[in-house]
Amino acid sequence: MKKNLLVVGSVAFDTIENEYGHADRVLGGAASYSSIAASYFAKPAIVAVVGTDFTAKDRAPFKKCKIDTAGLEVKEGKTFHWGGSYDKDLKNAITKFTDLNVFQDFNPVLSAKQKEAKAVFLANIDPELQLSVLKQIKKPTLVACDTMNYWISSKKAALLKVLKKTDLFFLNEGEARQLTGEYNLIRAGKKILKLGAKHVIIKLGPNGSMLVSKLGIVQFPPYVLEGVHDTTGAGDTFGGSATGYLASLSKWDTLLAIKRAMMIGNVMASFTIESFSVKRLAGIKKGELEKRLKNYTSMLRF
Amino acid sequence: MKKNLLVVGSVAFDTIENEYGHADRVLGGAASYSSIAASYFAKPAIVAVVGTDFTAKDRAPFKKCKIDTAGLEVKEGKTFHWGGSYDKDLKNAITKFTDLNVFQDFNPVLSAKQKEAKAVFLANIDPELQLSVLKQIKKPTLVACDTMNYWISSKKAALLKVLKKTDLFFLNEGEARQLTGEYNLIRAGKKILKLGAKHVIIKLGPNGSMLVSKLGIVQFPPYVLEGVHDTTGAGDTFGGSATGYLASLSKWDTLLAIKRAMMIGNVMASFTIESFSVKRLAGIKKGELEKRLKNYTSMLRF
Repeated sequence: MKKNLLVVGSVAFDTIENEYGHADRVLGGAASYSSIAASYFAKPAIVAVVGTDFTAKDRAPFKKCKIDTAGLEVKEGKTFHWGGSYDKDLKNAITKFTDLNVFQDFNPVLSAKQKEAKAVFLANIDPELQLSVLKQIKKPTLVACDTMNYWISSKKAALLKVLKKTDLFFLNEGEARQLTGEYNLIRAGKKILKLGAKHVIIKLGPNGSMLVSKLGIVQFPPYVLEGVHDTTGAGDTFGGSATGYLASLSKWDTLLAIKRAMMIGNVMASFTIESFSVKRLAGIKKGELEKRLKNYTSMLRF
Repeated sequence: MKKNLLVVGSVAFDTIENEYGHADRVLGGAASYSSIAASYFAKPAIVAVVGTDFTAKDRAPFKKCKIDTAGLEVKEGKTFHWGGSYDKDLKNAITKFTDLNVFQDFNPVLSAKQKEAKAVFLANIDPELQLSVLKQIKKPTLVACDTMNYWISSKKAALLKVLKKTDLFFLNEGEARQLTGEYNLIRAGKKILKLGAKHVIIKLGPNGSMLVSKLGIVQFPPYVLEGVHDTTGAGDTFGGSATGYLASLSKWDTLLAIKRAMMIGNVMASFTIESFSVKRLAGIKKGELEKRLKNYTSMLRF
C-alpha cells in the first residue's frame, strides 16, 4: 500500500503562451503538479483552496491519480489564475497577470488526520504559511520544501525559519545564488546547509539537478528529450515526485535513496514538459515510466 | 605503448583577469590545452606556430607531458597573444585584445610522418586550415574537430566541408544553436549529423556535455567542483582528452567508448579549471586522475 504524503500549496488555473502554442485556463499550481507527480509513488493528500469556478472536470486529474482532496477547500470566489508567456528557451516565464483571487487569504488549517502526517511537501507558497503548516504537524519524519525568488526577497526571515525545520530543500540555481550570494552552486548549497536545511537539491532546469548534502555532492543530467512543449510545473513535478518516492521508503535519508529520488524527479519532469498542464503527467502508464527509468540508468552506466 | 594523436591548432599566450586573480602572458591556446590533456591517454604530436619570444620555459609543459613538438614551428616575430576577462560566472570571456602575430599566417604543412596519422584532433582554427590538414592526411581513422562562433559566422561554407569529413564534432551549446537555428540541443545535434558529422558532442560548460549520435543520445554532468579558478581551455581540454582516449582504443566508434571518452573529458576539464593556464593540467598525478574517474562513476551509480 502506498504511504501518505501531505502536499500543501497552490491549485490554480494557468494561461500560457509559448512557441509551441497556447493553453487557456488549464489546471496548474504547484500543489497540483507536485501531488499528481507524487501519486505514482505515494498517496498524496492536498491542502489547497479553489474558487466556486473550479469544476468537476478541473478536479478530474486528482481523482484519476487517487489524490485525497478532502483538504481542497472550496471558497466563494474565483480560483487563483496565472498568465504568462515563455521565451524560445522555455526557461524564463514572463508573467502577464497574477490574479490571486481566493488564494489571497489561503490559510491552511490541517485536519486531525493531517496533523499526524509523517511526510510533507510544502510547495512554493508564502514561507509564513509553510511555518504555520509545520507548527500544526505533530511529528513529521520527512519535511520537503520548495520556494521561489519572490519569497527570498520579500520574506527572507520567515524562509530562514522554515529552513531550520526542512529535511529536503528544493530551489533553482538562480534562487540558490540569490539566497546565499554565492555563484558557485556547491558553495551556495553548503551555505544553505549551514542555514539549517539537511539536504539541498538545486534544480537546474534543462540541465538536471544537483544535491548538496553531508551525504555527498551529486549532479545528475535531465532525462534527455526532444519534444519539449511547456516547462511550467517541471520543478514542482521534480520536487513532488522525489519527495513522494522518499516518503515510500522505510529509511529515506541515505545517499542512494536521495540519488534515486533525483532520478525519479528528472524522469517525471520529462513527462510534464511534454504537454501543457498535467495532461501528460496525469496519464503516465506504468510501462512508460519504467522504460524511462531504465533508459536513464542505462544512459549513466559505463 | 601510447598511440599517436596529431593535434593541429594554436599555441598562444593568454593574459586573463577574473574574480580570483589574474595571469599575465601564460601558456594558452587550443592546441596546448588539448595536446596536454590528450597526453594522459595518447602520444600527441602538435602542429602549431610560435614566435621567437617563446622560450624553453614556455615549452616545459609540452616536454613534461612527452609531447612531440617537431611540428611546433618557430617563426620570426611574436607568439599569438590573447587577453580577456571573465564575468563572475567564469563562463563568458570578454576579449580585450587578440594579437594574432605569427599565427596570422599559420599554414600547417605536415611532415611525411604526420601525413600517416591515424587519429587527428583539429583544434579550433580557421576551417580552411582544418580542410588543408585533412587533405594532407592519407588515411585517418579518427577525425575530431572543434570550432567556435567566429568561424560559424565568417567561414560557414568551409566549416560545412570539414563537417563532412568529421567523425567527432565538438562545439558548445551556443554554437550548436548558431549553426543550426535550433534551440533544442537534440534537434540541433541531429541537424549537425545530417550535415555530415558522424557524432556530435555538445559542450555544456558547467553542465557537462551531450552526445548526439546514431549510437544514442546521452547527457553527462560535469565533475562537480567547488574550487573553480579559470575556465579558459576547459573545452579544449575536454575535446583533446576525449579524442586522446578514443585514439588509444583499437575500436573507438561504440557508444560505450564514446561515453567513456565524455567521462574522461569532463574529469580532465575539472583539472584545467582549477588553475590559470595548464599549471594544474600538466601536473596531474596518476592517483589523482584515477580518484576523480572513480568519484565520477560512483556519483552516477545507483
